[in-house]
Amino acid sequence: MKNFTFENQTKIIFGKNAEEKLGEEIKKYSQKILLHYGGGSIKKIGLYDRVKKILKEENIDYIELSGVKPNPRLSLIKEGIEICRKENISFILAVGGGSVIDSSKAIAAGVTYPGDVWDLCLGKGEVTEPIPIGTILTIPAAGSESSPAAVVTNEEGWLKLDVQSEELRPKFSILNPENTFSLPKYQTIVGIADIMAHLMERYFTQETHVDLSDRLIEGNLQSVIKHAPLVLSNPSDYNSRAEIMWAGTVAHNDLFTSGRVADWASHKIEHELSALYDIPHGAGLAIIMPAWMKYVYRDNINKFAQFAHRVWHIDPDFEGIEKTALDGIEQLKSFFKEHGLPVTLQDLNIGDNRFREMARKCTSNGAVGNFKKLNENDVFNIYQLAK
Amino acid sequence: MKNFTFENQTKIIFGKNAEEKLGEEIKKYSQKILLHYGGGSIKKIGLYDRVKKILKEENIDYIELSGVKPNPRLSLIKEGIEICRKENISFILAVGGGSVIDSSKAIAAGVTYPGDVWDLCLGKGEVTEPIPIGTILTIPAAGSESSPAAVVTNEEGWLKLDVQSEELRPKFSILNPENTFSLPKYQTIVGIADIMAHLMERYFTQETHVDLSDRLIEGNLQSVIKHAPLVLSNPSDYNSRAEIMWAGTVAHNDLFTSGRVADWASHKIEHELSALYDIPHGAGLAIIMPAWMKYVYRDNINKFAQFAHRVWHIDPDFEGIEKTALDGIEQLKSFFKEHGLPVTLQDLNIGDNRFREMARKCTSNGAVGNFKKLNENDVFNIYQLAK
Repeated sequence: MKNFTFENQTKIIFGKNAEEKLGEEIKKYSQKILLHYGGGSIKKIGLYDRVKKILKEENIDYIELSGVKPNPRLSLIKEGIEICRKENISFILAVGGGSVIDSSKAIAAGVTYPGDVWDLCLGKGEVTEPIPIGTILTIPAAGSESSPAAVVTNEEGWLKLDVQSEELRPKFSILNPENTFSLPKYQTIVGIADIMAHLMERYFTQETHVDLSDRLIEGNLQSVIKHAPLVLSNPSDYNSRAEIMWAGTVAHNDLFTSGRVADWASHKIEHELSALYDIPHGAGLAIIMPAWMKYVYRDNINKFAQFAHRVWHIDPDFEGIEKTALDGIEQLKSFFKEHGLPVTLQDLNIGDNRFREMARKCTSNGAVGNFKKLNENDVFNIYQLAK
Repeated sequence: MKNFTFENQTKIIFGKNAEEKLGEEIKKYSQKILLHYGGGSIKKIGLYDRVKKILKEENIDYIELSGVKPNPRLSLIKEGIEICRKENISFILAVGGGSVIDSSKAIAAGVTYPGDVWDLCLGKGEVTEPIPIGTILTIPAAGSESSPAAVVTNEEGWLKLDVQSEELRPKFSILNPENTFSLPKYQTIVGIADIMAHLMERYFTQETHVDLSDRLIEGNLQSVIKHAPLVLSNPSDYNSRAEIMWAGTVAHNDLFTSGRVADWASHKIEHELSALYDIPHGAGLAIIMPAWMKYVYRDNINKFAQFAHRVWHIDPDFEGIEKTALDGIEQLKSFFKEHGLPVTLQDLNIGDNRFREMARKCTSNGAVGNFKKLNENDVFNIYQLAK
């Protein structure tokens, strides 16, 4: 087990009518906020009206900035930074999914950064005292509601990079499972793939003596696997929506990284895909993760056998444990497929003509991943396996 | 799943040489502190000297208050409050186990409370802006290093009550597994019983749709069960000591209470025992929890069967699931016994002459427990079952 520091200051307010706490939470930080969201979905479910009503009742001034798209764009972030500076705004309320929250974090960091906000993604500058943000989550997926990271897409060159800082964790996040009832099936399962990927990226480590965190991750995965079909078949099943929503936060709040080194290669390999083809991040992960697993499992067959046995309840084949390891990977792929996710690039009509370009961009800062260090050729091969 | 709020601001600094961060952490809060500890054990392992050296190097003033005993006493707490007020101390560093940390929390709350600190335990007053505390943990057990509670023993009448407030969570806790190498076997296993009790008190709830937290608790229990024999047979096994230490913190940091109602009857029933007979809390829990289980399991046989199957890997007997439930309880009791814990009151030479008195005190504020509400007679019967 490695040395570690764990600290997560985000306050989670979870359950039916959790929005009722919104006013008192915001007022701890500011009386004038940026209300940041995507498109029409929060209006369709009535959340937009409820939030505006609360802000008015609590005499909290707000300026709206909508239009966040999946894989949030740098141009809108720059617009947000401008507004916050001009209007002297000192708090951002993100209402939406991971893209809205990530966009808010990037704005929050940019407001107090004197240079170009993209520098923070390039590692040329440091996040310093960003303005605080709070969230009302509507899509269980990215885990951004209590994470320290934001992923940003720069339209110039379609580069997708992240900015990280403990100070970027939201001050509070309001999680009301009812706000997820109307999520379309595809968006629901794409979110679930993202949650599972966050767990698996942490699970597959070469660090030994990480039994407790192994078991916590396995428990979380089993719960997601149980509830995924339930939310798909009955989108208004409060309890299953609640399990998935809470699982998504816990998966990515960094408790499960304690004492271990997470991998993150699959995320990086996927980022190239979603930056170039603008596909949902979770869909890309459903394609990339099994391909990554097939490429790397020989580097720790027992870990993959443990995954197969403990998560998928596959009876270990002690005469050939490699078969058990491979069965676990197949089971994951079948699970994704069965629940409507793409599992090959072909499923999304993505050809092989840009594999080399993506592999090069993905490894432009050096090898990716920790379970196994992957160079440009490795990444190229993984795209090939994902065809 | 119930609505919940989850927030835990304690920063955990975990691993070898974790004490090196002590100076920079304390200086965020104060330059003059109370150094609070128990007896000789921190001196024996050299921790006392290391801490003093760091405080000197960092120019942090300190006043020492030692002598904390297990089941920390109100008289010493009052002495600590006096010292802090007189010396204008604005931070407490607890070096030790749960008793030292609890004592520190009670002092921290008492310093800023104008009345008698015992009022806070009686619920006659409220904790308001306690002075901050930090900890260096030496005994994995109580979970006080990131919990909001402190248990205090009032020698007048040997009453044992707790004081609770989110503000009492330590600002930071330093967890170096090497500091637990010299813990005697009995103290080690008594601590493990306490950790397991914290998990089981949360596990046994009548709340339904708590699948994720069920599985996280089961994972934590399995890890503790795996590593308990390892730390007992090889006290200097860093990795197993680390697993137990981290398990103890995670068990009680309140993540696992999310969405559910914990029970706490066994803790309250045990508190009467350790207040009167001054036995280690964990030893009392090893006796009381199985007795409590036998008394209440019929109120939710399936939950106990799930416990037997998932935690103890007992093959479910679908022709008579009650047998599976009972087998799980027996397995727990055998585990305690096998590893040197008492499992009956007789094992500690405690007779039945004060059962009625303890049952009355335990229920003086009304029924205890949530899985099943227990009145004075119920508690009396549980003492009888524990004979």
